[in-house]
Amino acid sequence: MVKISFPDGAIREYPDGSSAMDIARSISEGLARKVLAAMVNGSVWDASRPIHADASLRLLTWDHAEGRSTFWHSSAHLMAEAVESLFPGVKFWVGPAVDKGFYYDMDLGGRSMTEEDLRKLETKMNELAKQGNAYVRREISKDDAVNYFSDKGDEYKLDLLQGLNDGEITFYTQGAFTDLCKGPHIPHTGLIKAIKLTSLAGAYWKGDERNKMLTRVYGVSFPNQKEMDEHLLMLEEAKKRDHRKLGKELGIFTFDDDIGPGLPLWMPNGTIIIDELEKLARETEEDAGYKRVVTPHIAKENLYLTSGHLPYYAESMYPPMELEGVKYYLKAMNCPHHHKIFDAEPKSYKDLPLRLAEYGTCYRYEQSGELFGLMRVRCLHMNDAHIYCSREQFAQEFRAVNEMYLKYFKIFGIEKYVMRLSLHEPSKLGQKYINEPELWLETESMVREVLKESDIPFVEVPDEGAFYGPKIDVQIWSAIGREFTLATNQVDFAQGRRFKLSYTNRDNQPEVPLIIHRAPLGTHERFIGFLLEHYAGKFPLWLSPVQVKILPISDRFMEHAQHTLARLKKAGLRAEIDDRNEKIGKKIRDTELMKVPYMFVIGEKEVEADAVSVRKQGKGDAGMFPLSEIILTLTSEKENRQ
Amino acid sequence: MVKISFPDGAIREYPDGSSAMDIARSISEGLARKVLAAMVNGSVWDASRPIHADASLRLLTWDHAEGRSTFWHSSAHLMAEAVESLFPGVKFWVGPAVDKGFYYDMDLGGRSMTEEDLRKLETKMNELAKQGNAYVRREISKDDAVNYFSDKGDEYKLDLLQGLNDGEITFYTQGAFTDLCKGPHIPHTGLIKAIKLTSLAGAYWKGDERNKMLTRVYGVSFPNQKEMDEHLLMLEEAKKRDHRKLGKELGIFTFDDDIGPGLPLWMPNGTIIIDELEKLARETEEDAGYKRVVTPHIAKENLYLTSGHLPYYAESMYPPMELEGVKYYLKAMNCPHHHKIFDAEPKSYKDLPLRLAEYGTCYRYEQSGELFGLMRVRCLHMNDAHIYCSREQFAQEFRAVNEMYLKYFKIFGIEKYVMRLSLHEPSKLGQKYINEPELWLETESMVREVLKESDIPFVEVPDEGAFYGPKIDVQIWSAIGREFTLATNQVDFAQGRRFKLSYTNRDNQPEVPLIIHRAPLGTHERFIGFLLEHYAGKFPLWLSPVQVKILPISDRFMEHAQHTLARLKKAGLRAEIDDRNEKIGKKIRDTELMKVPYMFVIGEKEVEADAVSVRKQGKGDAGMFPLSEIILTLTSEKENRQ
Repeated sequence: MVKISFPDGAIREYPDGSSAMDIARSISEGLARKVLAAMVNGSVWDASRPIHADASLRLLTWDHAEGRSTFWHSSAHLMAEAVESLFPGVKFWVGPAVDKGFYYDMDLGGRSMTEEDLRKLETKMNELAKQGNAYVRREISKDDAVNYFSDKGDEYKLDLLQGLNDGEITFYTQGAFTDLCKGPHIPHTGLIKAIKLTSLAGAYWKGDERNKMLTRVYGVSFPNQKEMDEHLLMLEEAKKRDHRKLGKELGIFTFDDDIGPGLPLWMPNGTIIIDELEKLARETEEDAGYKRVVTPHIAKENLYLTSGHLPYYAESMYPPMELEGVKYYLKAMNCPHHHKIFDAEPKSYKDLPLRLAEYGTCYRYEQSGELFGLMRVRCLHMNDAHIYCSREQFAQEFRAVNEMYLKYFKIFGIEKYVMRLSLHEPSKLGQKYINEPELWLETESMVREVLKESDIPFVEVPDEGAFYGPKIDVQIWSAIGREFTLATNQVDFAQGRRFKLSYTNRDNQPEVPLIIHRAPLGTHERFIGFLLEHYAGKFPLWLSPVQVKILPISDRFMEHAQHTLARLKKAGLRAEIDDRNEKIGKKIRDTELMKVPYMFVIGEKEVEADAVSVRKQGKGDAGMFPLSEIILTLTSEKENRQ
Repeated sequence: MVKISFPDGAIREYPDGSSAMDIARSISEGLARKVLAAMVNGSVWDASRPIHADASLRLLTWDHAEGRSTFWHSSAHLMAEAVESLFPGVKFWVGPAVDKGFYYDMDLGGRSMTEEDLRKLETKMNELAKQGNAYVRREISKDDAVNYFSDKGDEYKLDLLQGLNDGEITFYTQGAFTDLCKGPHIPHTGLIKAIKLTSLAGAYWKGDERNKMLTRVYGVSFPNQKEMDEHLLMLEEAKKRDHRKLGKELGIFTFDDDIGPGLPLWMPNGTIIIDELEKLARETEEDAGYKRVVTPHIAKENLYLTSGHLPYYAESMYPPMELEGVKYYLKAMNCPHHHKIFDAEPKSYKDLPLRLAEYGTCYRYEQSGELFGLMRVRCLHMNDAHIYCSREQFAQEFRAVNEMYLKYFKIFGIEKYVMRLSLHEPSKLGQKYINEPELWLETESMVREVLKESDIPFVEVPDEGAFYGPKIDVQIWSAIGREFTLATNQVDFAQGRRFKLSYTNRDNQPEVPLIIHRAPLGTHERFIGFLLEHYAGKFPLWLSPVQVKILPISDRFMEHAQHTLARLKKAGLRAEIDDRNEKIGKKIRDTELMKVPYMFVIGEKEVEADAVSVRKQGKGDAGMFPLSEIILTLTSEKENRQ
């Protein structure tokens, strides 16, 4: 018998050699039908693989990220089987799961693939899926594996084999297709119910442009057609809401070759959004007792040696500038600078919790190929703060941080969110994790309790904590259901000690503070990118760069338009007059395109009544309103951040 | 006869060989007595030097910066004469005028100098001054000069002579002292009426620490005792108001060795001042039709090659970071980034004037030895903006910039200020100055007219314009009469063309915009340094980090104190409670030291009356006020920025 421990803490005994699938079946047939793979002692395994020793077990279904990536990787194998039947002699390189779906790189031996071929491949894949062929794992010696692919004349898999050691090599077979693969895979192809091959691309072998160009086929698959339909709809909507397209149309940001890749220039309209977000953060943080600081964008190498970011994090930083024999680095994070401000004056328990906030601009090196609009950039304006507190204060401080998240989610209409709580693994204390078993358990349990109390949906991820404490990744979903990682919060036992930070406690003894790193609004770059998609560029009034567009029907009404503009400006509303010599219909259409929330149309009867005719973006004519009344309405809408 | 042209445009004839002093005497004896030197064709000359050709002439008195520096340089010679009489055999290196006063570096041949010696030297200098010895200029051949100093065994002056060419060498003699010196000097020592030797220091020969340490004596001198007394009083007051001392005491800023020299960390109290200044700038600029942008702190080398900052300005920039084969620089100015935003979308005359504003953070390399508190730093938060306009719009735009300055001067109680208008020199067009004779004359005259119309005190400085247009340096004086350079404005014809910026004019033709660079509040670093001295740390209410300190007489009144705090916070006032277990007298004294503008004392009778007893900083008890009444008073004081 082997002892199996489950995530809820239960431990049960099963016959030696039982598989995760056997165990699932012993619980319920319904559960077994949903199992895609299993987490065994922190590693993802085939559900069918026998377990021969005591182990921790988590059954993985479509609801788990690891379940989905296993599903997609298996779909790549299914696609390979289909390709082999339509393009005999094809040779395969690698076929991983990606963020949403999978791809496989292949050498078609001089043949080319068309969009039409993709449709044929989908048909073939559906046919093979229906056969419900099992994915069969087989351990194989290196010699046998080399012989197998030598016989096939497959130089790609032979190249992969070079990097592998005897004893760690496995083959996977489903139906007529066998691949060198470390797995794991889903139980059988019958689970793949909906398939779409999305695109064809070229990819240099090993990403090196001196090598041969391979064919890359992207696809996505689901366990039912409904999810596929939702996914395709979401993709279509996401294309319309592409933040790069909207960002250009609405004058939010731009890039310039002479400035550099990944370094956005924020245009006037984007800067208004930045300023409104910073205003929100300032108000919220001031109410929550934060103090603001301003720190330089560079520091000496020594600062990052102390923090431990150098040398380990060096490849994510810009290279140093050497001045007067000292290396200076652009800051990739604000924490060390804030620690220095904590340390600038002696502290006592009366000064704690000390919450230092800064919209600090950090610079990180992302490879050119990884850069993507505002989502992957090299310049990050972070909604950063560091909370220095005692152990007793920790739970309350962490709760307050969560409340701030919930407040923001409400303001921005973010309805779906989840916190990924990454924990330590006790066997790796002192290596991957700082050796403070008590503090780990204490803070993990405090974090868990607070998340439960606050009714925040969260998942726990073992063995993914940061070196110096539990980590909380905040995932949010946009209005069209796309997932974004907004921010990472961290609990930190280590930096305080590394920087020799201390405060005098009630017993007049020096004590190292706990530190919470938090950034609820993430970075301007990613958050505004998210908001562009989330709102489809139709920002709520308070965030809109232009809040009201005044549309005089003809030049005769310019005086009343000017008067209206002055009144709006006095009320603190951002307004503009469309003074072009155009028909009112065109003025309205152009203003709709610029997604301005309100239009005030002014003609004969409006002048007479000292009023305006109001059109709400996307909703048409709302009728005529006295100017003072509509200004009150808008001011209140703006102040309530609706 | 020679034709002499005067600053007012008048041209008069004088006998060939007339000196500036002769000409001054021909105007009035009173004027002649005040003449210290003369500007002849843009160079400063001895007033006694004969003029042999037609020339432009400006008589220099104590009211001119060049007059004062000539006076101080002559005072250095006078000091050297005194030193030679008290320390025979002394050898001199260099003795220039500095910002306020002069110094001379000397080798005392193993002897040392004391504070007591300084007093003796002052006495000797006064004695020599009274002799009214003329400063006599003599041209001398290099051979004769070398022989003279070889005979004296003076290796220092021989070293200086090595760098000079025959024909450009002059000696100056007053009384018993002769020096190698290119001059100029004041007419005679009798003009020096008040002398103070202020300090003694060591200075390595040629600033190189491997060389011998020389003795440096600093001094200052004036044409009358009254100015000396005022100067000494100002110095004493400046010492009390030292921004480095106040900055530490009030928690405004700090430096840290691990961050780097010249890189201030802004503490919470300093950040409040920064935020208030930025709020003021935002409001003012928004009213004036500016648009805000946000740009990265780095850019590719190519940007600065286009702007022309590289390679010429390279030594004032941080060294480059090399990434993916491209050099990136920390920005030392915001203009090129703003030009790129101008250029990101096509522009027409309807888009002009376009005013792009950003509190941009720039990094400049100042030598370690030059760094000084917040006054000379390497990180600069600039109140920057660039105005892109047509020629027709220029005067109006420049006038508006000046009005903004005047508005700020009023807010900050800056009563003395002057603008130094630096002009081009027609003979250097195409070399030192961009070759646009018409634009130079046009913009210089526009700038001059606007300054006159706005009644702004200004001086014109020939041949000191920037390469690409007239430059306006804004000098301001603090409450104790110390002079600061606040900001530099520039008119720019060149960058627009270098960056190929253009807009479509009314005739549908492309045209290059004029650019005004402006920064009325200078940098946070220098301006807050100035304000610390100007206000002696006693900031007006709106700028005070803590606006009200609530002082409960004992713990019994904490509830009312908390209630008062909540009311103040709700009214947007920054308040704190002094909850220490201290006597009220000590609480008041400590709050005075922290220069908090208002104290609310709370005891028995205040609780009963729902009131507070108000103390105004430095002014003592102002009596008891109902809370709502005093809150109204403070809110209005704050909003009016008093």
